[in-house]
Amino acid sequence: MLYQVEMIVRIPQDMDPEIAADLKAREKTYSQDLQRAGIWRHIWRVAGAYANLSIFDCRDNTHLHEVLTGLPLYPYMDISVKPLCRHPSSIHEGDA
Amino acid sequence: MLYQVEMIVRIPQDMDPEIAADLKAREKTYSQDLQRAGIWRHIWRVAGAYANLSIFDCRDNTHLHEVLTGLPLYPYMDISVKPLCRHPSSIHEGDA
Amino acid sequence: MLYQVEMIVRIPQDMDPEIAADLKAREKTYSQDLQRAGIWRHIWRVAGAYANLSIFDCRDNTHLHEVLTGLPLYPYMDISVKPLCRHPSSIHEGDA
Amino acid sequence: MLYQVEMIVRIPQDMDPEIAADLKAREKTYSQDLQRAGIWRHIWRVAGAYANLSIFDCRDNTHLHEVLTGLPLYPYMDISVKPLCRHPSSIHEGDA
Amino acid sequence: MLYQVEMIVRIPQDMDPEIAADLKAREKTYSQDLQRAGIWRHIWRVAGAYANLSIFDCRDNTHLHEVLTGLPLYPYMDISVKPLCRHPSSIHEGDA
Amino acid sequence: MLYQVEMIVRIPQDMDPEIAADLKAREKTYSQDLQRAGIWRHIWRVAGAYANLSIFDCRDNTHLHEVLTGLPLYPYMDISVKPLCRHPSSIHEGDA
Amino acid sequence: MLYQVEMIVRIPQDMDPEIAADLKAREKTYSQDLQRAGIWRHIWRVAGAYANLSIFDCRDNTHLHEVLTGLPLYPYMDISVKPLCRHPSSIHEGDA
Amino acid sequence: MLYQVEMIVRIPQDMDPEIAADLKAREKTYSQDLQRAGIWRHIWRVAGAYANLSIFDCRDNTHLHEVLTGLPLYPYMDISVKPLCRHPSSIHEGDA
Amino acid sequence: MLYQVEMIVRIPQDMDPEIAADLKAREKTYSQDLQRAGIWRHIWRVAGAYANLSIFDCRDNTHLHEVLTGLPLYPYMDISVKPLCRHPSSIHEGDA
Amino acid sequence: MLYQVEMIVRIPQDMDPEIAADLKAREKTYSQDLQRAGIWRHIWRVAGAYANLSIFDCRDNTHLHEVLTGLPLYPYMDISVKPLCRHPSSIHEGDA
Repeated sequence: MLYQVEMIVRIPQDMDPEIAADLKAREKTYSQDLQRAGIWRHIWRVAGAYANLSIFDCRDNTHLHEVLTGLPLYPYMDISVKPLCRHPSSIHEGDA
Repeated sequence: MLYQVEMIVRIPQDMDPEIAADLKAREKTYSQDLQRAGIWRHIWRVAGAYANLSIFDCRDNTHLHEVLTGLPLYPYMDISVKPLCRHPSSIHEGDA
Repeated sequence: MLYQVEMIVRIPQDMDPEIAADLKAREKTYSQDLQRAGIWRHIWRVAGAYANLSIFDCRDNTHLHEVLTGLPLYPYMDISVKPLCRHPSSIHEGDA
Repeated sequence: MLYQVEMIVRIPQDMDPEIAADLKAREKTYSQDLQRAGIWRHIWRVAGAYANLSIFDCRDNTHLHEVLTGLPLYPYMDISVKPLCRHPSSIHEGDA
Repeated sequence: MLYQVEMIVRIPQDMDPEIAADLKAREKTYSQDLQRAGIWRHIWRVAGAYANLSIFDCRDNTHLHEVLTGLPLYPYMDISVKPLCRHPSSIHEGDA
Repeated sequence: MLYQVEMIVRIPQDMDPEIAADLKAREKTYSQDLQRAGIWRHIWRVAGAYANLSIFDCRDNTHLHEVLTGLPLYPYMDISVKPLCRHPSSIHEGDA
Repeated sequence: MLYQVEMIVRIPQDMDPEIAADLKAREKTYSQDLQRAGIWRHIWRVAGAYANLSIFDCRDNTHLHEVLTGLPLYPYMDISVKPLCRHPSSIHEGDA
Repeated sequence: MLYQVEMIVRIPQDMDPEIAADLKAREKTYSQDLQRAGIWRHIWRVAGAYANLSIFDCRDNTHLHEVLTGLPLYPYMDISVKPLCRHPSSIHEGDA
Repeated sequence: MLYQVEMIVRIPQDMDPEIAADLKAREKTYSQDLQRAGIWRHIWRVAGAYANLSIFDCRDNTHLHEVLTGLPLYPYMDISVKPLCRHPSSIHEGDA
Repeated sequence: MLYQVEMIVRIPQDMDPEIAADLKAREKTYSQDLQRAGIWRHIWRVAGAYANLSIFDCRDNTHLHEVLTGLPLYPYMDISVKPLCRHPSSIHEGDA
């Protein structure tokens, strides 16, 4: 089941650079593991912003909640979620 | 080059049902032609709304403008556009 | 799977009263059928407004979309949707 | 008498983890006591957010105010309240 | 039990003046009957606007809903409601 | 002359509890003195919020400004002001 | 006593041009009479908009309400009001 | 050439009182010098707020920018600017 | 003197196509005359929208007001204006 | 390919003045290098604000993202981006 998720990252300007670098590295690993598992279906950078547009494929709302709250950068993110479903005009198999 | 496009459709309640049906049929054909051409990369329905989230792959901003203003339902849509680029964490070839 | 749905109804002031009465009667029947089927889990009136707060229990996002777009008053509603999941503090069996 | 209450929790990022853990534990106990007493009728997690949607059943507005301002996490919450009443289409006894 | 209610009136510019005059006359009678009954506790005009700030004293949320939806001008109003309770600093008997 | 004033109080979470208690005590005294003087005509708590709805009766705008900026908690408040006047439907002597 | 008043004029596009011209002529006369009487102290056009910024000097809130609701274009205006008072830094006699 | 300028002052609550007093004194001197020079044409206090409504008469946009960024309290202000021009209904010589 | 002007065009869907075509043709001529005169310095289409971003070079605010209110499509536009001035980092002669 | 970029700068009030001066100097150099390269096509100051309106000419969205995130003041900016394209009414060669 698909969800549109937009994440805006707001790391505090006074965070220790090493801690920030570690968080970002763990975020990348976490994201790529979920991409490989087919759960984080798409991720794009919004041009000019420290933000992304992502498509998640989760079993249900609870699964989505666990995936998002597990993000290493979750405490520093503004997240908005919209449930998606297949569009009747879509011809792409991957859009469902 | 990728763009996030969100479209909310607001067909007037007093539109002649035949005209509305014709517009929607032409919208579907137009969308599927662009999907086959690789330009309209993704389209999802936002659950509960007469709205979609789409990803377009256009040559440039002018191309995007032509594609969107050519939509048969364009005069009845609220459209918002965000330019996208490849996310450094993405492992999907199709996300670029 | 649960969803919070808020519906604000905006019937045009110049709608024929008989058509409006028929729409409302069909809306009530539709709502009560879904309540009996366990899909429309809760419905409350927002005091002072022609609006309701509802909880839906659907199989997935697509099911929710079908249920909402089937509402007889759907063309006259502003609808907002939030996916819900079980709260770790809840002790109510019915909250999942 | 029923009220819709939405709570967004914003615990400061620099709060001592022990103090935060203690606050959350007391919040859970407080919530479950009120659930057992029939006052906190429903509580759901909003997927992807540190937020909940709740339904309270209080004697009156003053009772609601006392219940909410007594929340251990109250100083860290954004709270919005809407008074509810029985919906004429509801067939659920528990919706009143 | 007290509620703050703000009403903004938007009578359509093309309403027949006689119908509008009749609606306003019935609105005034309705308001004054409720004022005499102690239910509509206060009503003030917002300077420069076709709007009022009112305080209602109702038995419960359902009573408030019935009173507001019974307003002759209700279909032409934007209404916002906030539940109130006694302020610990108040020394006015009438503020409860 | 009457004014609607809404005050939202935002005391910093790290304020010394004794200073906060002293401020609140002085705020209460200040408010009750003005209530006795007939200037602070009404004060209600907004249910669930650290906020109030008040009605002030001042000689003019300058008098209102002096009264509000003299509040001990003024530096920690978000204040909104609307000038009021007698409503033509009011039958309450106290509403003017 | 001074008030800042901003007026945005929204004359319907399908209003009969003669009626519109008559309304505007009466608006101008009404405005200039009040300017001569010292009540409409200033009026400026907001560049690029069918809108003005005005300063009114009225006896009280009721007087302001009468002056504004008497505007010939009042039914077609969005009006916002802020009560003003003398600024402690002002050296202009006319700013009070 | 005239501009409407609204300034909301937000001095940090933890600013050293002597520094704050010095800033305010310099702000007052700066303002009165510009008033005497005919550049700061009007200044009014917004009742109940630490904010003002001002009218500036500057040679051009650059001149306005220099005047505003030179305000001693500029780093602590939210400023909004609207270009003004003479209103065709104005009879006041000073409104141009 | 420079101004940023954003124009969103909202031609009513039921406007006679010939009248609309005539308005657009006159708008184009008007725009190009002002471009040739050096007053309408830049005009860009916002991709996906019936809207433009423009830079005007006018003698003063009054001149800008005359130019904008003279637009054939002015009654169908939402217009926002910001006064600009030379940026200290600019090396382009044309940016002043 | 052109983009409208608006940047609002919010340097923390407690930043070390030398660090701030260094950042601003590097920002200026960075901006002028890009102006000379034809990438930062225009930059204007918004009068009264620590903000600019800029036009960028980039190869694609990724190029724009690299240019913006490379700004020395990027961590202290609120940035909004709109893709632009040639306007059919433009006669300026430089507007494409």
